Amino acid sequence: MPQSCQIRGELLARCVNENAYGIGLAGCGTVGMGVLRTLKRNGALIQQRTGGMQSFVVKRILVRDAAKPRSEEFAAELFTTDWRAVVEDPEVKIVVELIGGTDLAFAIVTRALELKKPVVTGNKALLAERGREIFALSLKYNTPIFFEAAVAGGIPIIKTVRESFVGNRIHAMTGIINGTSNYILQRMSEAGLDFQSALGEAQKLGYAEADPTLDVNGWDAAHKAILLATLAYGFPIATEDVHVVGIQQVKPMDIEFAKQLGYVVKLLAVIREHKDHAVEVRLQPSFVSRNHILASVNGVFNAVAVHGDAVGDAVFYGRGAGQDPTASAVVADLVDAGASLADDLVHRGFLPWREEGKLVPIEQTETAYYVRFDVTDRPGVIAEIAQVLADFKIGISGTHSPVNPEDPEAAFVDMVFLLHRCPYGLLQQALQRIEDLDCVNAQPVVFRIEQL
Amino acid sequence: MPQSCQIRGELLARCVNENAYGIGLAGCGTVGMGVLRTLKRNGALIQQRTGGMQSFVVKRILVRDAAKPRSEEFAAELFTTDWRAVVEDPEVKIVVELIGGTDLAFAIVTRALELKKPVVTGNKALLAERGREIFALSLKYNTPIFFEAAVAGGIPIIKTVRESFVGNRIHAMTGIINGTSNYILQRMSEAGLDFQSALGEAQKLGYAEADPTLDVNGWDAAHKAILLATLAYGFPIATEDVHVVGIQQVKPMDIEFAKQLGYVVKLLAVIREHKDHAVEVRLQPSFVSRNHILASVNGVFNAVAVHGDAVGDAVFYGRGAGQDPTASAVVADLVDAGASLADDLVHRGFLPWREEGKLVPIEQTETAYYVRFDVTDRPGVIAEIAQVLADFKIGISGTHSPVNPEDPEAAFVDMVFLLHRCPYGLLQQALQRIEDLDCVNAQPVVFRIEQL
Repeated sequence: MPQSCQIRGELLARCVNENAYGIGLAGCGTVGMGVLRTLKRNGALIQQRTGGMQSFVVKRILVRDAAKPRSEEFAAELFTTDWRAVVEDPEVKIVVELIGGTDLAFAIVTRALELKKPVVTGNKALLAERGREIFALSLKYNTPIFFEAAVAGGIPIIKTVRESFVGNRIHAMTGIINGTSNYILQRMSEAGLDFQSALGEAQKLGYAEADPTLDVNGWDAAHKAILLATLAYGFPIATEDVHVVGIQQVKPMDIEFAKQLGYVVKLLAVIREHKDHAVEVRLQPSFVSRNHILASVNGVFNAVAVHGDAVGDAVFYGRGAGQDPTASAVVADLVDAGASLADDLVHRGFLPWREEGKLVPIEQTETAYYVRFDVTDRPGVIAEIAQVLADFKIGISGTHSPVNPEDPEAAFVDMVFLLHRCPYGLLQQALQRIEDLDCVNAQPVVFRIEQL
Repeated sequence: MPQSCQIRGELLARCVNENAYGIGLAGCGTVGMGVLRTLKRNGALIQQRTGGMQSFVVKRILVRDAAKPRSEEFAAELFTTDWRAVVEDPEVKIVVELIGGTDLAFAIVTRALELKKPVVTGNKALLAERGREIFALSLKYNTPIFFEAAVAGGIPIIKTVRESFVGNRIHAMTGIINGTSNYILQRMSEAGLDFQSALGEAQKLGYAEADPTLDVNGWDAAHKAILLATLAYGFPIATEDVHVVGIQQVKPMDIEFAKQLGYVVKLLAVIREHKDHAVEVRLQPSFVSRNHILASVNGVFNAVAVHGDAVGDAVFYGRGAGQDPTASAVVADLVDAGASLADDLVHRGFLPWREEGKLVPIEQTETAYYVRFDVTDRPGVIAEIAQVLADFKIGISGTHSPVNPEDPEAAFVDMVFLLHRCPYGLLQQALQRIEDLDCVNAQPVVFRIEQL
């Protein structure tokens, strides 16, 4: 077949002509090792798939302790504790930042951009907190930064929103984007565990880190939501402008109650554009209808539902973390970074693409609610709480006080109210008044009831 | 904010410096109009998102009848019935082929590539049948062809497999990629309709075309499966090498029976790499466990499940057809095509990337099966059929002959066998022998029982 031979000939010629791109790898932990493994296993396949144009060779690796014994396949001289030795090495053409944190990582990323070396990172905290500065440098030096691994692990949601849905006005994105908390909520639901036990189990299985703070307090997911919202709407969003509530206060009774009503409890990122183009970005434990596709996202899996004005509803589902899925995203970005070098660094625009946008203040966001109060069990409690809600014109669709089977005469009980749709600010005002009642012993716990 | 002002200034400078890309649009039917509408509605947004670099203007439109009255927003001189006038117009930089078919479309696409004009197409039949020639020309003229709209409408599965999963060896892809047949099967399931009534309903709702042949006989989906397999495994696959069975023979009783066993019936594309790297590509009505995520893909929605060696399991779900979702895919490709022009036409490799690959002969593919026989109701029928199966060493896990409530004494009945996992070739041999039995009145109908 002469045609095919010609194809092969040209491909081979390219393989010979092109040199591999030198990579400087900052951080050689779980994901870094995953990247090295993936390149080793599938490097030849990647080269074939890219018409022989893309191969990679690791030139320097930044580590904390260069003397630590490592796999023999990497020459000892690759390793250094000097970050400048990695970023500034003239053989390093692409910098991969996987050390996490926002200080040293910031130094590495910004120095790479100054040197016009494309950056690949999975660091959501860095981009959510210092994205404005970093993207400005990316623009200034006409050098791209890729961060598929920063959101939802192996799910290509960044590329999808940035490229595949570029022709869509994004009306909403709703996501389960923290696998650790999703696993904990699922175990609380299916095994009736309390939060602490489910967290302990997740830690034992390696699904939660020794310090799980950012996972369970919602901030890991919030950083990702900020990135997604910036992609869709194009303006930088300050972390302090985003309302974030974690799952630490979720009790088995909440999950049980949700079930009875036909819901499951999920830590949900909600990003939504209002009619006036203001954008709602929030992260809270939420009741999701059990019939919605997000309700079946179990364990450490992630999913993001997107509604675009052209594409309609779409959902992306996969592993949101872990060595190999995250490495899959990093390697895809490496190929894009390599292409950007071959293409004389012309790339598809920068983030943010506009300076300012409007966020919807959390007080103005509206849903229905499930609120749990810790009250002293005496006559009149329901009446007092209901009266305050009535004063604020907040409708009640149900109330319930489950009897504790282990202590039916308990003096302190949990009392649950289901409330009609109203602005969150109004609810907060009412809850502050209710907190002042002498029968109420602690800050009420609020769940959103989402209409997806 | 001086930094942001600087960003804006540079973006504006680019907007002014860059000219819009001229588009030649071949075909102005449903999808073509959707593309024009989307560009009109979101063109400014696309330009912002791409750093001011990408805007589009339609220069010529190929139609069947230039005199037909059209929306006033398009000048009459845009329209022509001469395809060369569209493709060869020097102001046309990108050619969008949306006329369908494989003859004129082939002429248009190949001429565009010869002229080094990037092509965007949604024509799955063209690429599945003549992809080998077209991709060779794309390579020869170093000019890319984009075809996101050819598979699963608005779901970016082409870009995902080609770019986001470039670092993965793809073990399997399983998809519901024909919305028409999925809608028909769902209506047969939930309303107990027979095939013809459900098809009629789909036609009335615009979900099926006047000539629904390619949708219901499986070939629309098969063309898409061929493209997906070529993307994942890199070699051209001839249509005649793919085993395709449509849904015309599905009866309500099959769906009912599947339900009782915990399955739903789906027209499933199965693409799978075996250990020896041979690839299985087939399309058949299949039993899918009701707990699998693909079982909940209803109506005209599409979904593709991918298993990659790094990313693990991922699922992509959305609208597989329709004006706006398909336009979403075409517009994303337009932006990639524009980027390829800006980037001096260097792009990410070609398809196929290797000349030859091995397909698994359909006879060697193995699943369990559900087989329905049309038999004459007389004693000994089960024994005769079971004996043939025994001769071929095919295990039976169950057999059932539902009584027709409208005619309990019917002379001809449907008899169902559930069979253990065995090679499809062995089953076919047994079924040929069974067909020769005088109690068997027609060719048996086979469903795969998939283990996903």
